Amino acid sequence: MPDYRRRVARDAMSVRLDVNGMMAEAIGQARVGGDEVDGLVARAAEAAHSLQAKRAAGELPFYDLPSQKDALAATKALAAEVRAECDTLVVLGIGGSALGTKALLGAVEPTRRVVVADNVDPWTFGKLLDGLDLTRTVFNVISKSGETAETMAQFLIVRDLLLRQLGAVDYAKHIVITTDSDAGALRQIVHDEGFRALEVPAGVGGRFSVLTTVGLFPAAFAGMRIDDLLAGAAWMDSRCHEAKLWHNPAHLLGALLYLADTRHQQNVVVMMPYSDRLLPFASWFAQLWAESLGKAETVDGAPAHVGQTPLTAVGATDQHSLLQLFAEGPVDKVVIMLRVEDHGRELPIPAAYADLDSLGYLGGAGLGQLLNREQHATELALVQQQRPVITLSLPQLNPFTLGQLFYLFEVATVFAGALYHVNPFDQPGVQASCRLTYGQMGRRGFENERAVVEAWVARKRREYIL
Amino acid sequence: MPDYRRRVARDAMSVRLDVNGMMAEAIGQARVGGDEVDGLVARAAEAAHSLQAKRAAGELPFYDLPSQKDALAATKALAAEVRAECDTLVVLGIGGSALGTKALLGAVEPTRRVVVADNVDPWTFGKLLDGLDLTRTVFNVISKSGETAETMAQFLIVRDLLLRQLGAVDYAKHIVITTDSDAGALRQIVHDEGFRALEVPAGVGGRFSVLTTVGLFPAAFAGMRIDDLLAGAAWMDSRCHEAKLWHNPAHLLGALLYLADTRHQQNVVVMMPYSDRLLPFASWFAQLWAESLGKAETVDGAPAHVGQTPLTAVGATDQHSLLQLFAEGPVDKVVIMLRVEDHGRELPIPAAYADLDSLGYLGGAGLGQLLNREQHATELALVQQQRPVITLSLPQLNPFTLGQLFYLFEVATVFAGALYHVNPFDQPGVQASCRLTYGQMGRRGFENERAVVEAWVARKRREYIL
Repeated sequence: MPDYRRRVARDAMSVRLDVNGMMAEAIGQARVGGDEVDGLVARAAEAAHSLQAKRAAGELPFYDLPSQKDALAATKALAAEVRAECDTLVVLGIGGSALGTKALLGAVEPTRRVVVADNVDPWTFGKLLDGLDLTRTVFNVISKSGETAETMAQFLIVRDLLLRQLGAVDYAKHIVITTDSDAGALRQIVHDEGFRALEVPAGVGGRFSVLTTVGLFPAAFAGMRIDDLLAGAAWMDSRCHEAKLWHNPAHLLGALLYLADTRHQQNVVVMMPYSDRLLPFASWFAQLWAESLGKAETVDGAPAHVGQTPLTAVGATDQHSLLQLFAEGPVDKVVIMLRVEDHGRELPIPAAYADLDSLGYLGGAGLGQLLNREQHATELALVQQQRPVITLSLPQLNPFTLGQLFYLFEVATVFAGALYHVNPFDQPGVQASCRLTYGQMGRRGFENERAVVEAWVARKRREYIL
Repeated sequence: MPDYRRRVARDAMSVRLDVNGMMAEAIGQARVGGDEVDGLVARAAEAAHSLQAKRAAGELPFYDLPSQKDALAATKALAAEVRAECDTLVVLGIGGSALGTKALLGAVEPTRRVVVADNVDPWTFGKLLDGLDLTRTVFNVISKSGETAETMAQFLIVRDLLLRQLGAVDYAKHIVITTDSDAGALRQIVHDEGFRALEVPAGVGGRFSVLTTVGLFPAAFAGMRIDDLLAGAAWMDSRCHEAKLWHNPAHLLGALLYLADTRHQQNVVVMMPYSDRLLPFASWFAQLWAESLGKAETVDGAPAHVGQTPLTAVGATDQHSLLQLFAEGPVDKVVIMLRVEDHGRELPIPAAYADLDSLGYLGGAGLGQLLNREQHATELALVQQQRPVITLSLPQLNPFTLGQLFYLFEVATVFAGALYHVNPFDQPGVQASCRLTYGQMGRRGFENERAVVEAWVARKRREYIL
């Protein structure tokens, strides 16, 4: 294992951002170019300065998660304790309480089983519960607000099941709560029932919480080296202190996507890893980008209705699904490719059928080599069609490089938020749906919302239903 | 089991298309309206007539797959034979050779294990092979052309493994090939090695092949009632003979998405099932829509660069990820929601913590009820924000309703192709990437392509790599 305290080890494991495929000189005049980036330098410096000041004032605590100490120790200790007690950890959480953990578990082989249950589908949740040995299972209930309807419904079902099957004395040992330190409902329950609990640090929202107890506890339980994960994030942090836009990978990334969207109507950003293990990371990014930047208003309350739509794909698979559209459809998207140089394993392709042109050429190469050559081929094929491409290259896929990726995209998102002039940390647009659900579920105070839903269903025109 | 020969049973199991949420009277003037649909009636009639004529001439064989007889019998017989021999079927295929099967397996609980290996990631493919008992495994190699690089590489690895572990006499029993009847490389190999084989019917491309041997063989192996699947497709077919645009669900669906894209710059179409089991179906739709309609040219060779970008999401989960963007971002997307009335299972939410406002209201309802109420809530929340929504409602999720969905979207896609004036059956835009891969892999005749890739990598500017 490389020692990430040594700069040379960190440098050899650096994630590289390659923006050649975004530049007008490669893909033609009508695309983002160096001139446009140059034109943004002054605004970028201002944005960087303002974010730096907020960070220094403690207003943006996600920035400093790589250097956390006490919470990390507590998380590790509890993970070790729970590992000694059970075989399976089931995370009950949704959105920001699930996507980071899924990205972590997908990327690095767990040595202990962790399942993330992030929906309220009775079929899949029922099937999951059917298959568990409850005596060897711990449930990690994660909700920052302590009020998330889906997670609370799961919790009520699981708590009842544990009570009935394990009894009133033992059941509490099978639940670990991760929530705010504030006096939310879950905090009250922790107090009353004596569950073990972890704290989500104040001021860190769900989609920025992968490097808090939210993601770190399940990852530590799964056997991941979470120190390396944080070391990777810290390394990327050190690279993103750079004031000059052209030299700061996170700011350049955020700026290029902002320019593509606002100047070139590229309102879709595709994240396409050439590695199955990074597909859950792409879904994590999708939430981060969509929920942070998709906003109706600027920070000053002016109408905005901005936000680029994130799309996830995986190479080489989606070359046989979405590539046709990427290559020949409208030039309305930027493709971010993730490339893993060394997959940690290679499968040689045996030579056979040398007389058949369409198979013979494959023999002697490796499967990972084929995958990486397809990445280069598709990158170039898109550039030839004047489609913008950004390539991120990982020397290997490990906790250190994964930590870099998380941090890179978090900073890029917050920086893009400054350019769009929106608040990347709120999500006011999801409240209406929540309230309409409360109404139908009969929650006190939401009687009007119930009536509104019933009226909508009742006034639907029959001739529009086939 | 309902008898789908009886019309009343079919009608009770009909998928319903609800387009109220697309209409300007519900969501405001700036959206697609009934007037726009009316304005399309003449062109739609022409398109319907032309497709009908091509179907009658046998030029569009996918239309008639629901009534296939001989191929179906052969598929069932082979599936029964293979079920008697092994526990696990591993499908080696990519794109159209994988997505339909994944949609089938995801939606209906298999009684026998089927794994679809649709990428060349050495980590995940190696891990899959490590975990197999080869003596109890059969591999179904699916490639219409018989030349797909990824599938052929997998095949070479698997064939070598079987030869070494099971010997030259037995290995051939563990491979079933699904390919064209034409003299492709795979057809030659079937002949030389004596593998069992199934035929992909002529004129049916990958993304329209789910109801051929490609999807039916793995589905039958998995224990699915494939007769019901075809009966569902046939039922939808009978509903889509209707000449009037307003009464034909597939044509109306295709027309509305076409209008949203071309008249209202809604260049993204989201498919969002409120059922985990339909998420793979959404990925199947994504290929169908993207690859069929994302085209550089019209059928007359005029420049087009059209195509709407399909995005997959799942409710309720993605209310906590993408909904913020859908509700407050640009009005650049249409959301298609899939709703399952009866999930086939319900989990009651136990009443507890009645004194806590934020949990008490959940008790007494069911988890599936919560999920479906969230669908109504989100549909209305989007409409309130003047965002277009289409809702498809399935009475249950079973082979009969799934067959309807496949057929509905296939016909909608082909109909939209006629409106866009593009060929929905080709995919010329993926060739460049294939050829550049061949070049790097040293395939004879692609030496120029190798040089082009090397030149691209060599001329990248260092200052654009951070």
